[in-house]
Amino acid sequence: MAKLITAVLLSGGISSRFWPLLDKNTFVFQGKEFLYWHYLQLIRAGIDTCIVVTNESTNNSIRSVVVPEGLRVSYVIQKGQGMGQAVAALDGLLLDEPILILNTSDYYSDNFITSFVQKIQGENTMILGAVRLSNYFPGGYLRFNIDKTVAEVIEKPPKGKEPSDIGRIVADFYPKAGTIIDAVKLVGDDQVNGYEKAMNLVIANGLSCKAEITEFLNWCPMKYPWHILTCMQQFFPTKQEQHIHPSVEIKKNVVIEGSVIIEEGVKIFEGTKIVGPVYIGKNTIIGNNNIIRHSHIGSFVVTGFSTDITRSYIGDNCWFHTNYIGDSVIGNNVSMGSGSVCANLRLDDEEISNVVKGEKIKTEKNKLGAMIGNNVRMGVNSSIMPGIKIGQNSFIGAGVVVDRDLEEDKFIFLKNGIPTTIDNTKKAVVSREEFRKSL
Amino acid sequence: MAKLITAVLLSGGISSRFWPLLDKNTFVFQGKEFLYWHYLQLIRAGIDTCIVVTNESTNNSIRSVVVPEGLRVSYVIQKGQGMGQAVAALDGLLLDEPILILNTSDYYSDNFITSFVQKIQGENTMILGAVRLSNYFPGGYLRFNIDKTVAEVIEKPPKGKEPSDIGRIVADFYPKAGTIIDAVKLVGDDQVNGYEKAMNLVIANGLSCKAEITEFLNWCPMKYPWHILTCMQQFFPTKQEQHIHPSVEIKKNVVIEGSVIIEEGVKIFEGTKIVGPVYIGKNTIIGNNNIIRHSHIGSFVVTGFSTDITRSYIGDNCWFHTNYIGDSVIGNNVSMGSGSVCANLRLDDEEISNVVKGEKIKTEKNKLGAMIGNNVRMGVNSSIMPGIKIGQNSFIGAGVVVDRDLEEDKFIFLKNGIPTTIDNTKKAVVSREEFRKSL
Amino acid sequence: MAKLITAVLLSGGISSRFWPLLDKNTFVFQGKEFLYWHYLQLIRAGIDTCIVVTNESTNNSIRSVVVPEGLRVSYVIQKGQGMGQAVAALDGLLLDEPILILNTSDYYSDNFITSFVQKIQGENTMILGAVRLSNYFPGGYLRFNIDKTVAEVIEKPPKGKEPSDIGRIVADFYPKAGTIIDAVKLVGDDQVNGYEKAMNLVIANGLSCKAEITEFLNWCPMKYPWHILTCMQQFFPTKQEQHIHPSVEIKKNVVIEGSVIIEEGVKIFEGTKIVGPVYIGKNTIIGNNNIIRHSHIGSFVVTGFSTDITRSYIGDNCWFHTNYIGDSVIGNNVSMGSGSVCANLRLDDEEISNVVKGEKIKTEKNKLGAMIGNNVRMGVNSSIMPGIKIGQNSFIGAGVVVDRDLEEDKFIFLKNGIPTTIDNTKKAVVSREEFRKSL
Repeated sequence: MAKLITAVLLSGGISSRFWPLLDKNTFVFQGKEFLYWHYLQLIRAGIDTCIVVTNESTNNSIRSVVVPEGLRVSYVIQKGQGMGQAVAALDGLLLDEPILILNTSDYYSDNFITSFVQKIQGENTMILGAVRLSNYFPGGYLRFNIDKTVAEVIEKPPKGKEPSDIGRIVADFYPKAGTIIDAVKLVGDDQVNGYEKAMNLVIANGLSCKAEITEFLNWCPMKYPWHILTCMQQFFPTKQEQHIHPSVEIKKNVVIEGSVIIEEGVKIFEGTKIVGPVYIGKNTIIGNNNIIRHSHIGSFVVTGFSTDITRSYIGDNCWFHTNYIGDSVIGNNVSMGSGSVCANLRLDDEEISNVVKGEKIKTEKNKLGAMIGNNVRMGVNSSIMPGIKIGQNSFIGAGVVVDRDLEEDKFIFLKNGIPTTIDNTKKAVVSREEFRKSL
Repeated sequence: MAKLITAVLLSGGISSRFWPLLDKNTFVFQGKEFLYWHYLQLIRAGIDTCIVVTNESTNNSIRSVVVPEGLRVSYVIQKGQGMGQAVAALDGLLLDEPILILNTSDYYSDNFITSFVQKIQGENTMILGAVRLSNYFPGGYLRFNIDKTVAEVIEKPPKGKEPSDIGRIVADFYPKAGTIIDAVKLVGDDQVNGYEKAMNLVIANGLSCKAEITEFLNWCPMKYPWHILTCMQQFFPTKQEQHIHPSVEIKKNVVIEGSVIIEEGVKIFEGTKIVGPVYIGKNTIIGNNNIIRHSHIGSFVVTGFSTDITRSYIGDNCWFHTNYIGDSVIGNNVSMGSGSVCANLRLDDEEISNVVKGEKIKTEKNKLGAMIGNNVRMGVNSSIMPGIKIGQNSFIGAGVVVDRDLEEDKFIFLKNGIPTTIDNTKKAVVSREEFRKSL
Repeated sequence: MAKLITAVLLSGGISSRFWPLLDKNTFVFQGKEFLYWHYLQLIRAGIDTCIVVTNESTNNSIRSVVVPEGLRVSYVIQKGQGMGQAVAALDGLLLDEPILILNTSDYYSDNFITSFVQKIQGENTMILGAVRLSNYFPGGYLRFNIDKTVAEVIEKPPKGKEPSDIGRIVADFYPKAGTIIDAVKLVGDDQVNGYEKAMNLVIANGLSCKAEITEFLNWCPMKYPWHILTCMQQFFPTKQEQHIHPSVEIKKNVVIEGSVIIEEGVKIFEGTKIVGPVYIGKNTIIGNNNIIRHSHIGSFVVTGFSTDITRSYIGDNCWFHTNYIGDSVIGNNVSMGSGSVCANLRLDDEEISNVVKGEKIKTEKNKLGAMIGNNVRMGVNSSIMPGIKIGQNSFIGAGVVVDRDLEEDKFIFLKNGIPTTIDNTKKAVVSREEFRKSL
């Protein structure tokens, strides 16, 4: 009988492109961290052992993620950055075990993961997850031998110089963990391509390597904050099911359509419409005359009167009041004053671009609203332009039109009519008492 | 038996005072051009032949207006401007036929037109439509002979020098078309008063002229864009009738009161109230928690969430979302971001004035909103002051308060808090695909 | 049998700290002046005779307050300011009658007043209303003799130097009016502490003085305009009663919860929720899709579409339209354009401070909106910051964010984006005709 596969989850990235949101591994969907959803998926695919590679700063929060029954998890901290360093951290922990390396930045469909695990079960060759590409993408490509085995991984070939139309994804199977660990150690300290060099070294040393190619990959990356909007959809109920906790209070003239999950203690007031897929977390209050469509709403949220939340992610403890929030990502403990709007469409309907770490990024979205960190406050009648990011602990004054990203811990306000940014010396309060009073 | 009367419709004006809306003849009410409504009226009055005088620029669009059954229409292009040039264009087309000259800028009541046509049937004198005036108006007055026949038409006499209290309207009957055509040719190239001079010449030459005086004229001019708001009321159903196409989808908690016409494919969402008279064109979507009162709404419009449209004209393909639009005229393919408002009342409740072609005009309205050309985009939380006009293809940025007219093809936005106007290099897209998706 | 007590109501203050609202005695709650509510309370406590001390400027309006059956009221005008001058004005009117002096700036609970009147009935000592304090307050304290009689009233002792934990409130009983009147005359012209000096003189002269101490005083001062929000709650029905006049028109999908008083001729439109305690005055129109919570709304108000009024006082003849009004006081004949908001919460949730007559005052409120005088107009999408006061007859232009108090008769507007204040040459119109039309 073949040895059971150990999954290695690479969770040691520092999520810098995910700003203004924090560590993606512990980002919460439906009350559970993103990593928890990975754990569940592994269990569904038949894997019962897993090592999570963390980094110094996220190690504690990642360890606090509850592990579902049926999975044994151990943790190891990687020293530097990059996948090579992540695999090097496994040295001494694994030797002859078959391993499947996955990156928790990417969430693949259950179909893919389950089928891949079945295919690699008991194999004694290296097997790489791969996808047939119809367009160029700036990642790793596979070069093949005549016998269709993989000859080499080529990182970011120039456009037109691709060795095939097969791109590599991070789903790498090794029949023995030690093989890749040793290779990584040999390659040494290359934080960018160390891992890929090690893979090529393993192949060059004679281990046969196959590609498991899918024609179409249902793939959800969590690199940029707007990816949250795609990723959250993976966890909505797929069938037209309505899971409404018996404690939920639904007032008159409320219409609920489509698939919804509504948790314990939620109240939904008169004249409101919910159009699934929608998730509403515990103890959240959906006010009068709201419309909530295709959105994730955390727990202890109050949406107030006449609010429209459409295709958006809302964290916990947020407060709204007569707002429009479209195609937006809102962190925890954010509040918006009456008439404050997250615009989600350019006047010319063109693609909304974004600057991430100084680099202009195509979002490939024509509808994209704001991305707002934790503990942000927005004044009445303020507006955020499409695709703008607001750092945590920042305040936006009444009537301000925010048309560029705002760092954390800033206060932008109208000083004699002119938008003026200063350091924010105030902190957003989470008024638990208020929550309780209103429940 | 008397010869049947040929109607001559003067449609050769250039609609310059109608800005930012385009040619008034092809301006659409309830899916039909204004000229079409004139055609229908002629048929109801018993006229079966009509010549439309157009100009070079509008000729094609006017010819494309579908002619209803029961009317024969021919077209002729006038060379210069003015009514004289219009009548001159009839030279060679008409000779001994009795004609009734009407200006399609004015829409008279059915009562007036039908009764006037009956009165002139078979007459062999010239007969002018006229109205008893209680206040001075800067138009044509009639001077009478002792026998009550008309002695002369006097254009714009100074106030106090009016020859009578009888004003002329453009509804002129001649037993033979050639009489006035010849007179116009004799008068020659006077683009301002050539026609009136020719009338006086005809009278001076001995043709008896009578006035058909109404005490009160139900009269709807289409000179300035705000006249659209009065004119659209002519076409609403007058009785408390509800014409709702069987395909119309009406969700829960919708209230529809008064007379309405709701066309094929319309959807009306929950919590919305419609207060007639209201027209809603094909495939339009009225969103949740709206109020729509006394308004004309074109086809393929989406009103979004929590929008209030009151006493307004809305063209086709418009998109709204949590807006207030009061006493306003909105062209085709206009969209307004969430929280954008067309104000319709001055803070001091005084009459709203207007500048048209450099001249300050009294609108005689205390409630008047915006007048907006085609393909305009308004950003979130922007505001347009009462009576302001926005040229077509212009964009208004988020948060801007527009307090003066904006030319076409401009972009006004807040640059560091200051409203700044530049040429608009972008175009408003009509996203048909979006329409279809949302239907 | 003991002589019946005459109440002396001190109503001669000039309400300068009550700005931008006017004289507090004639400030209207539920269609009745504040003084009228005092009259009712006296009757309930068994008092049938009352003298109201007024001042020159308020005398006429105070005399116009209707006196309820069961009470005899006479009026006297005080010369200067202060309580001493008020009592001096009684000279010649009262002599041997027992009197109870009350300040109409303070509204005590029925429990307190009724019990106090019972206690003092037939007494022949001076009796002062008093309250046990747990915190320092900058008012009068009582010093006691060993036998628990009052030795002295000490005005505003420094913190730490209080002679006891018993504070004085203005509810002073004298078995003979002449005693205190004579003392006040002896003390002479001290407008600040003349009355307290006179009290001490009476005690020093040998009249025994007792304190009637309550452990907890349900006390409602009307000093600052935000006190209106507390005071109005005294007059809401305390039980879950709904007093809805039979003429009230309630449309479909309206929900009314809690205790409400809804007067004659009110109309409430579809999709609206009323959450008591709520008072709605005569002929007021509550529009579609509103929410009205814990508020006082005057008569002839129109709330328009999608308005949220929460914990606020609204006077008569106001017009709203898609507004949020939270924790605010709005005078008579105020109107707000669509999207105009009275913010009620600082971004940092801290206490809202206030400047009254040049002095920074703690409001002890974290939620406090605007306080707006009569005849104010607010443009569309304008915003008023928490705790801001707007003087009567002032106008606020569209899009302005008002972040400091605005004097009366001003117009603040955006001049090329910059908020600019000028004298207001326009007046707000009360369009009665419009009211009638819309009823």
